[in-house]
Parts: sequence; C-alpha cells; structure tokens
Amino acid sequence: MRVNAEPAVVRGFRFSGVSAGLKKAVGAKDLGLIVADAPAAATAVFSANRVKAAPVYVTMDRIRAGRLQAVVANSGCANSFTGKPGLKLARDSCAIAAKELGCDAELIAPSSTGVIGHLFDLEKFGAGVREATKELRPDGMEDFARAVMTTDTRPKLASVSIRMAGVNVTIAGVAKGSGMISPKMATMLAYLVTDAAVSAPQLKTALKAALPHSFNAITVDGDMSTNDTVILMASGAAGNHAPSRKDLDALNAGVEAVSAQLARELVYDGEGATKLVIVEVKGAKSPADAERCARQIANSPLVKTAFFGCDPNVGRILMAAGSSGAMVESDRLVLAIAGVRVAARGALLVDALPAAAEKMREREFKVSLNLKLGRATSTILTCDLSYDYVKINAEYTT
Amino acid sequence: MRVNAEPAVVRGFRFSGVSAGLKKAVGAKDLGLIVADAPAAATAVFSANRVKAAPVYVTMDRIRAGRLQAVVANSGCANSFTGKPGLKLARDSCAIAAKELGCDAELIAPSSTGVIGHLFDLEKFGAGVREATKELRPDGMEDFARAVMTTDTRPKLASVSIRMAGVNVTIAGVAKGSGMISPKMATMLAYLVTDAAVSAPQLKTALKAALPHSFNAITVDGDMSTNDTVILMASGAAGNHAPSRKDLDALNAGVEAVSAQLARELVYDGEGATKLVIVEVKGAKSPADAERCARQIANSPLVKTAFFGCDPNVGRILMAAGSSGAMVESDRLVLAIAGVRVAARGALLVDALPAAAEKMREREFKVSLNLKLGRATSTILTCDLSYDYVKINAEYTT
Repeated sequence: MRVNAEPAVVRGFRFSGVSAGLKKAVGAKDLGLIVADAPAAATAVFSANRVKAAPVYVTMDRIRAGRLQAVVANSGCANSFTGKPGLKLARDSCAIAAKELGCDAELIAPSSTGVIGHLFDLEKFGAGVREATKELRPDGMEDFARAVMTTDTRPKLASVSIRMAGVNVTIAGVAKGSGMISPKMATMLAYLVTDAAVSAPQLKTALKAALPHSFNAITVDGDMSTNDTVILMASGAAGNHAPSRKDLDALNAGVEAVSAQLARELVYDGEGATKLVIVEVKGAKSPADAERCARQIANSPLVKTAFFGCDPNVGRILMAAGSSGAMVESDRLVLAIAGVRVAARGALLVDALPAAAEKMREREFKVSLNLKLGRATSTILTCDLSYDYVKINAEYTT
Repeated sequence: MRVNAEPAVVRGFRFSGVSAGLKKAVGAKDLGLIVADAPAAATAVFSANRVKAAPVYVTMDRIRAGRLQAVVANSGCANSFTGKPGLKLARDSCAIAAKELGCDAELIAPSSTGVIGHLFDLEKFGAGVREATKELRPDGMEDFARAVMTTDTRPKLASVSIRMAGVNVTIAGVAKGSGMISPKMATMLAYLVTDAAVSAPQLKTALKAALPHSFNAITVDGDMSTNDTVILMASGAAGNHAPSRKDLDALNAGVEAVSAQLARELVYDGEGATKLVIVEVKGAKSPADAERCARQIANSPLVKTAFFGCDPNVGRILMAAGSSGAMVESDRLVLAIAGVRVAARGALLVDALPAAAEKMREREFKVSLNLKLGRATSTILTCDLSYDYVKINAEYTT
C-alpha cells in the first residue's frame, strides 16, 4: 500500500498547533488540537507502564464510551507523576477546551508530553487553546504534528487512501517520539484519523491488529514512556455504507500501513540516531523466542554502539541472541548483516566482514539472524547508539 | 569484614602473567597462570548465555570432578563462536600447559576473554605458557590480574583473612570485566583462591551463596557475556581441621566479601564509567518485584545518561520502575537520590533537586526507592552511560 508522508486532509477533522509558552524555546509550537465536526467513533491504546501520566488516566476513562470529538495535546510538560493536582489539571484543561470548542468535555482526550513531575501553567494553556481554536484548519495536520514534538527533529506524518463500499476513504496519522521508546502496547504519542464510517469496535480491531507490526515493533532505548497513547478516530464523513468484511480488511490494512510508517519514522528520528536497523529473527522455535531474541539484539547497547561504529560485530549480536532466553544453537544459525552473510555453521566468515562493514555505512540496513530451529519470525526496528544519544539525554534537564 | 585490595599471598598457590603476543598492543600481558601445588578442591559457575565460549564448555566438563590444579587464562581472544576448532584449541592449550606444569590436563581449566569469533595462535600461546611457568610466584597475583584485562583500566584484586578451626585462612580473588557485564549466574572472569582445607561441595555452597550479593548484583550495560566464569579453588595449605558449621559460616562470609569487592570493582571500572551508583529498592511486594525494579532502573539508558549529566531526573527513574513489571503505586513511593528525598506522596519535591544534583557530582552515590508495598529489597550496582562508553564500543573493532 502506498503511504504518503505529506500532510493529508481527512474529511470531518480540523487541526491546529500553536505556541502557548509551555516549552522553554520561545515561539516553539507546544499546544495542538484535533477536532471532529461531530462526535467521532474512537479507540485508543496506552502505555503499559505502571506509572502512567494523568492525561493517560483521563483518556483511558473517557475512551470507554467509544467516542471522542477532540484531542488537546501539549508538549513541554508530561503532567506525569503529578498526583491528584495533575488529574485535576488534565480535566480542567479539557474543560477550557470544551468551552472554546462548544463540545462536551467528556468527549475530549487530553495528551501531554515532556518533562515528568511538573504541572503546566493553566493560564498559558487557556490562552493557547483560544488561539489554537481560531487556527483550526482541515490542512492543519503538520502544525499539530509540530506542537507535540519534544526531542523530535521533524514532524511525523503518514496517510493512505483506501476504497470502502465504493467510496474513497483516507486514513492519516501523526506521531511524536524520539527517546523513551520501547514497545509494549503503545509507546509514544500517535493520533490517527479517518473519514471512514466505522464503529468503535471496528476501529479497536484495526488498531490492535496493527500494533504488533508497527508501534510494538520498534525500540530506541528499551525505555517505556509513562505517557504513551495511540488514538484512532473516525468521523464517518466519507459516507460509506455499513462496511463489509472486505471493507474492514481494507481498513485494517490501511491503519497498519499508516501505523507502520509512523513507527518507522519514530526510529529513523530516534535520539542521536544515525542509522535505522531492521533486526529480523527467523527460524525460531516459537514466536515468543523470535521476539525475545530480536528485542535483545535491538536493545543491546553493545550491538547498538557497534552499529554506530559500522562494525560488523558478530560476537555482540550472538551474545545478545544467546542471552535472550530464546533457544539458540551456535552451530546451526546463519547471520547476515546488510545482506552479507557473516556467520554460518558455527563459524565467523572473516573474509566477508569488510564487505559488511562497508554496507553498514548506509543510513538503513538489515540484520537477519536465522536460528534454523523452527518457523517463527519477528522483526524489530531499532537505531544505533551514538554520542548524540548521550549528549541529548545527559543535557536534557529536569 | 575488612577487605584488602592489595595482591595477597595464598599458601599453596602460585601466579604469573606474561605477554604472549595475543593482544594487539605490543608487550601487554595477555596470558596468565594460577597453579596449585597439588590438585585443589574447586567449584565454578558460568555464563547463562546460550552461546557459550569453547573454554567455558571445557571448564564446565572438568569442574564436575570437584578438583582443579591450574587455570590457564588469556585475553585478546575469547575463543567464542569458534565451533569444533575452538573446542580443540581450548583442549590443546591445556595439554601444552599440562606438559609444562607436569600435571594432568584434565585438572586444568582454560579461560579466554577478548574478541568473539576468532581463534588464537597456538604457537604464540605455547611460548607464552613456557614463559609464564618460569614466572610463577606466590606473589604473582597482580601479574595474573593484568593478563586477563581487556577494556579494564586497572587490575581488580581483593582478599580477606578469616579464622577457621583455630588457624588463619586467606581468601583472595582476581576479576576482569568492564563491558558486556550483566548478571545471571556469573558475568565476567573471576578467580578466587583460598588456603582453607575444605571440600568442593563446601566451596560450591559458599560461591552460590555469595553470587546474589556480588557478581549477580551488578550491571554495566545489561549485556551478558558468553565467557563468564567464576572459579573458586582451595589448596588446603592452611592445614585447618575439618571445618565446623561456624568455620563454614566464616568461609561463606569471606567468599562473599571478596566477591562483593571484586564485583564492585567491575562496576567502578565499567566502560566509560564516571560514577558508581548503588540502586536500592525497598518495600517491594516480593523479592522478584524488588529485583526486577532495581535492575530496570540500573539498566535504563535514560537513567544512566541522567547519572552522567548529574541530573536528578525523577521522571526517568520512576518511568523505569513503572515499566519493570513490578507493582508500583505512584502515590506511595518515596525516592531519594544521593541521600536527598526527591519524591514522596505522589509528587516531585522540586525544591530538593538542586541539592540532589550537587551530591550527584560525587564519584559514588545511592538511589533509594521505597515502594512501600511490602518488605522485599534488592540492591544492584550500576554505573553511568557516558560519551566514553560509546567511544570504547563504537571503536573496539572485530
């Protein structure tokens, strides 16, 4: 499916992003709105972290009804580990937005990202919401995407067009995230909208099916955020008839394609990342083994620093595979780095290493480990660990 | 118990360390011997990694008899992921040493550390063993310690004196390791010797009891080596009578004290480390919860970069705790960094942060998280993640 990375227009939705002064950088966008013309069918998934942010609790509560009309999101402050005052702040911020937008506060999902442990200034927030309401536009998706960025270096957008019951339907999404990215449910902020006329349960099925191949298949640092949220809303403005099984298949494929593209963008823009690496484990004894093994390789600091150094370090990759808990037999496995076979039949293929090192200079390559013990596979997207990861995270202060 | 960091003399053992040309650096020591005057009671624990090095397999096999007379260790090459040729090399290297030392090859444990996937030169090795045999001395422990160093910046030694059945007994140890350090069984190379007259099962009990509080309670990067080995040998030269329960308690305490000191040294000298951080979790619902939570904090790249930046980043520590799988309730926990309480009753104690940041400048400090949900505790030693970790590991080539 062709995925578009440009901002898309999705009938029934308007977007905006403004600077409310919540971020330290003067003039940086930090408050965004997604508003549906009428209450939209909606579903969401959240961080599996036991320490969840206040807006996550509020959104978890509100999404139960299967409907949302708006998302009000801010960067510069995560409103996490803020106790009861944080919950009150999340609800109050929605109440302000509800007044401005003329909709029920219970239909507004709050989202926050940024530093943990602090509250944001409700007065600045209120002024920002007023401005953001004025700025709402069908083509405002990129402004919204910029308003939720933290250490991201660029906005992340994706969209696809599908056919459902004879009409054109658009599915578009926005995501933010660059560090504290490791999958378990959803692991950053992402917002998907579609003009399809579908129910909340149908959206839920589509989102759950998309996760294992998108947001749950990426890692930057193995750290799971407290604020992670993926929201999927459908306005119904496409006016399609009740969807058939085939239409829902198209919807699922579309949601997965947009999610996968956004997830990929998150890793590509990982903190300090100079390379995107696709870690593929094949021939594992079980799906759990395949995933465990791929994740251990994708999260190993030694493997990730070797990627940064363009070093085809077979030993580190096998060390990670062997320590993952997955069944591994040194004598059977075959390992290829960037398309070059570097280990097989229990031995390092020393002559192949210079070619592998050369190919590792590319911005993107694949590490493919075939365990030859079964049929299960798993693919995890990761990035390298560079000086800039340390710089960004040692200097990003509380 | 007072632990000595100077090289010790342990009756019944001689040591040496020489340069055999196995390391790239000219003249660097890379081959070491530990030799008992007669077969010694012995026990050992090994890497839990599914990909184990050839010398580990050979030593695992030989230790079953509960006796060893010598250890022949090299750095510069791990002899791991080397298949059958690697096993042959490990056995052949012991055969050469057996001939030089005049002892049974089955009583020699081989140990290797360095780059994975390569074999070492047996001719150079043989010449080195001949020289090392000539150099054997009761006070050669530091030379041995230097011969097993890789990215270590200094040799790691520890010893204690205990009383058993009325006689003085010494327990001394040597360890190497700086990266690829994460606990599960044993996770680096360590060699402990004592002149106590004790049996192999008594040594085994002492070593197993020491692990959870020493080598299994440290992490540098969450990566588990393929070569990890801890060997404990007893010459019996102290001539004590059959040990009583009380004597064995003294032995256990001594082995634990030496192990804990060596483990601490490994973290202090962690790759690129500028700080040693003691991560203590208290009040957990179960011991498993306590350990999971402490480990997740100790391994989080975001937490470790914050340590490097002297940033009392409460959010990252709680993010890690919450994602560990342990039961965590934000409203109950109390967090202190370097003795300064920075979070309690569900809120960040903002005014305390400057004091915490100031204290984090020290070479060593404690992070103490009380979950207030039970009575279980766990302590893990970790270090920070610095530019130099990336430098060392991006430039250390295959």
